[in-house]
Amino acid sequence: MSTVLPAASRLSLNQKTVNALGLVEAVELCKRHDIESIGLWREPVAELGLETAVDLVRRAGLRVSSLCRGGWFTTTGEAFTEALAENRQAVDEAAALGADCLCLVVGGLPPGSKDLLGARHQVARALDELVPYAAERGVMFALEPMHPIFAADRGVLSTLAQALDLARDYPAETVGVMVDTYHVWWDPALADQVARAGAEGRIASYQVCDWVLPLAADALLSRGQPGDGFIDFPAITRLVSEAGYRGDVEVEIFNAAVWAADPDDTVTTMRRRFQELVAPNL
Amino acid sequence: MSTVLPAASRLSLNQKTVNALGLVEAVELCKRHDIESIGLWREPVAELGLETAVDLVRRAGLRVSSLCRGGWFTTTGEAFTEALAENRQAVDEAAALGADCLCLVVGGLPPGSKDLLGARHQVARALDELVPYAAERGVMFALEPMHPIFAADRGVLSTLAQALDLARDYPAETVGVMVDTYHVWWDPALADQVARAGAEGRIASYQVCDWVLPLAADALLSRGQPGDGFIDFPAITRLVSEAGYRGDVEVEIFNAAVWAADPDDTVTTMRRRFQELVAPNL
Repeated sequence: MSTVLPAASRLSLNQKTVNALGLVEAVELCKRHDIESIGLWREPVAELGLETAVDLVRRAGLRVSSLCRGGWFTTTGEAFTEALAENRQAVDEAAALGADCLCLVVGGLPPGSKDLLGARHQVARALDELVPYAAERGVMFALEPMHPIFAADRGVLSTLAQALDLARDYPAETVGVMVDTYHVWWDPALADQVARAGAEGRIASYQVCDWVLPLAADALLSRGQPGDGFIDFPAITRLVSEAGYRGDVEVEIFNAAVWAADPDDTVTTMRRRFQELVAPNL
Repeated sequence: MSTVLPAASRLSLNQKTVNALGLVEAVELCKRHDIESIGLWREPVAELGLETAVDLVRRAGLRVSSLCRGGWFTTTGEAFTEALAENRQAVDEAAALGADCLCLVVGGLPPGSKDLLGARHQVARALDELVPYAAERGVMFALEPMHPIFAADRGVLSTLAQALDLARDYPAETVGVMVDTYHVWWDPALADQVARAGAEGRIASYQVCDWVLPLAADALLSRGQPGDGFIDFPAITRLVSEAGYRGDVEVEIFNAAVWAADPDDTVTTMRRRFQELVAPNL
């Protein structure tokens, strides 16, 4: 982004926060609430059709802060080859949508495997294959370190330090990291690694949502609106801001109760929390 | 320990694995299964009475690999003062029992607080107060880094690196760390930090249990017998062994199904898994 936007303009609605809506409705919701940016998911984009989606978002004047998601390439053999093909397609979609980044959830241990180091090694092999393809299309990957609760089944990339170590072999304009409060808030090395990510020019995205307890039966759905849980959003936002991040801030909430609520209410709360906890610290 | 024990002798039953039993029954269970070491919990020890417990364990010829647990001192004011008193008492008990270490679960965020750094700071303040007391009584603390799933409500100490950084200000014979597979298996820095812990003479205890999915409704109870989940026990055990650890290896399982099972069956399985996955790598 060449111009620096005022903090209030930098709020982005990640589509997952209003999971019950299709893309058309999500875009209308953004317009209704003066939200200027949206984080898209591949499935609802595909449902509408890529070209229609590109046209819809452009006509609405929305920025696309991210496309979720590529990754899931910790496998080997044919599954690995298929994952690479799928990721190339995701890169094409991110390019068409003009997304600021393509989020990569790298995947957990392959079925039956306990070889964590091997799975992590496959992530590097996948990047070796995919980075040139993304670079040619001007797409930036956002490697997403995931909370260790997901190390077995979703993301063997567990810390910012690990993501940045992995990114080091690739150009900063193509391989960045996602700072998602839910995944990194507990990390004793957080301040150092956010500063490092900024110094290395690799903060591709900043996502916010809260850690709430008790965990939901499906731990994936345990996220809450900023302010509903244990995370210190002002403190973490200041770290990200001081590290030089000037992009959009996505609110991405996986939560069955939030998904069942009236989307207008969800977005009203989201906007208020963003104004209270995030915007003043950007 | 002055003599190096054969690997098979180093299995220790943490009482929590057979949570339904009192201390008398747990000691009998150890004898029945030729287990030479036990990890005790303060509550069942208190139920029997400390002196009786000391006598029981001595007459049974069992080593006490740990006493669980001290800690819970991330608070301030009166609650902090009370926590220190409670921990001094735990030190006295560990000394009386001749426990190899006193496990410290440091505690989560104080009620209503989101100040993770502040809570971590209190852990250091507590150690400042407690270390001289423990040193005088020859008790070694085992700082337990806990899986980040527990950062909010149980343990703001989240990684081995953080625990070792914290330990640095105190003598190695008084402040060590716990390596618990359940809590640390996902850590990208695991190999380096286990080696560091060994080099610094600070591995106070090695506990094993598995990460199983899906998580239990109470996430605390999601642990499984080694081999039932995702953790590579041979690999982690080799790291701990190569780091010079020669003490007992506790199996500590929080799991409602395990607790409901016949304790003899539980210990038979535990013993077999230890022989298969752990002992050959010690």
